[in-house]
Amino acid sequence: MTAPATTPTHALLDTHAGVLDEIRQALTTRSWYSRYPESPSPRVYGESAATEGLNAYEAHLQQPYAALSSQPTDGAFVGSEVSPYGPALGATYPALDVDAAFEAAKAAIPAWRDAGPQVRAAVCVEIVDRINKRSFEIANAVMHTSGQPFVMSFQAGGPHAQDRAIEAVAAGLVEQERVPASVVSEKPGRDREGNPAPTRMQKDYRIVPRGIALVIGCNTFPTWNAYPGIFASLVTGNPVVVKPHPRAVLPLAISVEVAREVLSEAGFDAALVQLAPEGDGQGLARTLAERDDVAIIDYTGGPTFGAWLEQQAGARGALVYTEKAGINSIVIDSTDDLKGMLGNLAFSLTLYSGQMCTAPQNLYVPADGIDTDEGHLSFDDFGDRLAGAVGRLTGDDTKAVELLGATVNDQVRSNADSLGRLASDAGGRVVLDSRRVTHPTYADAVVRAPGLVALDVAREDVYTQECFGPVGFLIRTASTEQSLAQLADTVHEHGAMTAAVYSTSEDVLDAARDAAAAGGVALSENLTGQIFVNQTAAFSDLHGTGANPAANAAYTDAAFVANRFRVITSRRHV
Amino acid sequence: MTAPATTPTHALLDTHAGVLDEIRQALTTRSWYSRYPESPSPRVYGESAATEGLNAYEAHLQQPYAALSSQPTDGAFVGSEVSPYGPALGATYPALDVDAAFEAAKAAIPAWRDAGPQVRAAVCVEIVDRINKRSFEIANAVMHTSGQPFVMSFQAGGPHAQDRAIEAVAAGLVEQERVPASVVSEKPGRDREGNPAPTRMQKDYRIVPRGIALVIGCNTFPTWNAYPGIFASLVTGNPVVVKPHPRAVLPLAISVEVAREVLSEAGFDAALVQLAPEGDGQGLARTLAERDDVAIIDYTGGPTFGAWLEQQAGARGALVYTEKAGINSIVIDSTDDLKGMLGNLAFSLTLYSGQMCTAPQNLYVPADGIDTDEGHLSFDDFGDRLAGAVGRLTGDDTKAVELLGATVNDQVRSNADSLGRLASDAGGRVVLDSRRVTHPTYADAVVRAPGLVALDVAREDVYTQECFGPVGFLIRTASTEQSLAQLADTVHEHGAMTAAVYSTSEDVLDAARDAAAAGGVALSENLTGQIFVNQTAAFSDLHGTGANPAANAAYTDAAFVANRFRVITSRRHV
Repeated sequence: MTAPATTPTHALLDTHAGVLDEIRQALTTRSWYSRYPESPSPRVYGESAATEGLNAYEAHLQQPYAALSSQPTDGAFVGSEVSPYGPALGATYPALDVDAAFEAAKAAIPAWRDAGPQVRAAVCVEIVDRINKRSFEIANAVMHTSGQPFVMSFQAGGPHAQDRAIEAVAAGLVEQERVPASVVSEKPGRDREGNPAPTRMQKDYRIVPRGIALVIGCNTFPTWNAYPGIFASLVTGNPVVVKPHPRAVLPLAISVEVAREVLSEAGFDAALVQLAPEGDGQGLARTLAERDDVAIIDYTGGPTFGAWLEQQAGARGALVYTEKAGINSIVIDSTDDLKGMLGNLAFSLTLYSGQMCTAPQNLYVPADGIDTDEGHLSFDDFGDRLAGAVGRLTGDDTKAVELLGATVNDQVRSNADSLGRLASDAGGRVVLDSRRVTHPTYADAVVRAPGLVALDVAREDVYTQECFGPVGFLIRTASTEQSLAQLADTVHEHGAMTAAVYSTSEDVLDAARDAAAAGGVALSENLTGQIFVNQTAAFSDLHGTGANPAANAAYTDAAFVANRFRVITSRRHV
Repeated sequence: MTAPATTPTHALLDTHAGVLDEIRQALTTRSWYSRYPESPSPRVYGESAATEGLNAYEAHLQQPYAALSSQPTDGAFVGSEVSPYGPALGATYPALDVDAAFEAAKAAIPAWRDAGPQVRAAVCVEIVDRINKRSFEIANAVMHTSGQPFVMSFQAGGPHAQDRAIEAVAAGLVEQERVPASVVSEKPGRDREGNPAPTRMQKDYRIVPRGIALVIGCNTFPTWNAYPGIFASLVTGNPVVVKPHPRAVLPLAISVEVAREVLSEAGFDAALVQLAPEGDGQGLARTLAERDDVAIIDYTGGPTFGAWLEQQAGARGALVYTEKAGINSIVIDSTDDLKGMLGNLAFSLTLYSGQMCTAPQNLYVPADGIDTDEGHLSFDDFGDRLAGAVGRLTGDDTKAVELLGATVNDQVRSNADSLGRLASDAGGRVVLDSRRVTHPTYADAVVRAPGLVALDVAREDVYTQECFGPVGFLIRTASTEQSLAQLADTVHEHGAMTAAVYSTSEDVLDAARDAAAAGGVALSENLTGQIFVNQTAAFSDLHGTGANPAANAAYTDAAFVANRFRVITSRRHV
């Protein structure tokens, strides 16, 4: 395990050297950059890609996932995925022999470590390129595990997730390259006769990984939320154990299969990426997270388990990057494009039935109403206009399901059913009930359009709870000033992934930026077109801030990668 | 608190712009860089500097520290410092009214935050420059709180600590500057007619601090170990509360006084840096660390309290950077410069009576002995030769105290008295007892020269305990291979700040680099001159690795600074 005397080379580094240059640059400028086309159009991905992807997905159903049988396993197969659209997937996966898998992961470290950051980055790019080729297969898998509508499954589960993976690779690569491999340090000095006699030392800086990295996936965005942790740890030299949500295994099984395939072909140990699947209720995440040899944990999911992870792993010195839950908030002050604003808001509420960690929940509107290009709207008028916009967007079942997808679990369905109770408890009013939509293809899918409840700003007890799914609160405030103060306070206390403001006043926008900074949440201003508050772009938009309780990290800044490796100096006189 | 539309300017930024360029460059190259001359020579610091510094120090004795009376206080004065050289200092400090101080710190944030990284860095450089002018005063304060000998107090407590401060400023500055202030992102697209219609968005990235930073100082290196945390937090926008060790308040009181003076003069709130002094046994560190509004903790000190900090603060999401304790280790295999090696080792063992977190404790030597330029030495011969070298270095009391300083506390004295018991318990031999040295000036000082105990490698129960102070273990191993394996294993398990190897074999040196990488500790190779394993240079040598239990961070890498601030994006169409 001797440190290489020369910079390591590799065929994949030759192949992808140009890509590495591109992504280093993209990370620095943080302007728009995407490696993978987001359109599922046959003109982009090929005429047969969609069909082949569907066929490949269907080939996994009712089958053991044989391509992962090279992992250490006790021979059992696990899996209990049921599509939110109805059918049970019937796919099963070889249960991981955790002790053997961890030994294999450790044994894989030295060669991967000594390959150096550039070779690792090139291998990672190749993995993601190859994942990209399976985007349609993965899109179907994401759709039938998360309940996302198909186009979203393709985009968010495919190219957008892949771009986030590449972003993590870039961030990890650049971070490691900031450490020189070797320097000669020359300290001025004089000998006893007073002649210059500098002390010259060579110092070699060797990058070493932390150890085994555990990535715990979520149900709603199995790839998008797992790739950043997977690739940030992998590019910095750590072997990764991927523990998917028991209801969303397949998208990550395919991803891990590709990673292992590329690693093996590139001459590295496939044990650098391993899948730890489980059936519902097995509690494998806890078992894995408690192991002393897990040095890094990336987690997306519920706040209770997230807080437990932060405590127990934090206490033993493991790094923990969490994305939990929050109360995403929008302040409505005024607009010069009412239709654009309503359309944009309706879409943000509707997309995937609000089952995004970035979907808005709390809309603060002054009791006096708002000024618009169509005249003044009262608080109630605004609510009715927004309800109308949602209604128009989701009124036709066949079109609606292409935006709404299906509800992912009983909690979401229960939340969708709770609007009347919430309104009555809170002394508010149901502005729009959550409509039951019939899926034209999947009769068993439970599809719900967004509902809206109006209530008073005093009812923090109601609206500072996360009500995940198709539920929005219209919160009546005394003024925009109060709206902004509430946004800052509730985000600071309860967390948020996103915030937005609509105003024609520069003073209000300035105040909103301050409120967002005080709350510690990213702000979108006056979105009226095809950019939505729920969406962030790799390389340009940080996802999360790490500055409020919703997430302790952001995709992808230096803090997300800088501690995933350490630097060991050796020095000697020369 | 509006984000500034233009880059903030400041007179101190004009003054120090060139320095900022220099230190950015120095951090990138990691070659030798120092801003402050390490020689206490009158030719460098001025003919009267030493006398004035001593006078300034003495003016603090038996006095309340009035210059800090502008801090929020309940009117009480605290302080119980006693010089390890004998005299009680009699200095007292205004007790901090913690609630009021925290409110003041928070109120100070907005203007400091909005000043931007460059202005903050320039103000920090000015603070350190002004601290440098008080180096002799601080040197006396460090000497009479830590027990360091004077020249070391000057160097390590003065210019070397100041260089570490500047390094932290550079690291924090560069890290913030990696985030662009604003970009225009242009996503390609087409309108319905198929004409190019890119989506253009302006994205502003605003750097916000985490909150109140707590720095908990130590007894032995009150300034050197506190400055990195203080300046890393301050330059990234966080107000800092400095809690010195109750026995080493004065050096940090002077430093805080200077910081507050410069901040005020520069138009910022002095509450950005506050001193939280306490007398012995008050337990103020715990009280402060438990506050929810402490977002960052930097700690140097004992492992028990350090582990408690990591657990409780980690569990509530505060960042914790700790340096605790370790078992610094040296592998002796062979040398072509026996005298150089023995002299270097003797000095490392002797300096400040081994009371450095970087001082060697465990020396692994093969039972067969070692090859040298003076022929083969048996294990026992090597021990005797090393004992002789220590004896020559410390044989003359008057000269010895200039290297040894004074023992800092009863635990160190007890360790120095324990060699016979240790040897007898471990079935080993006292190769050199810890000699009692009489200080020619300070009769009450307890001064101890290093002692050496030889024992077998099997007695891990003895040598894997930290035996802080003038105690070295000569550990008899079966071979250098075993020595290296022990080094890796014990460091991995118990931690270490430093490691070294002596060998004429390139293969052994290579293996030592691997062992150091496996253990996660920096390695010095074949030091025979005026560079010692206990010493690291700012900007070039990382202090600690964060890769073993001795410390979870390193001075100063990106991981030490990247998470001390967060980035809040606001985006809008343009």
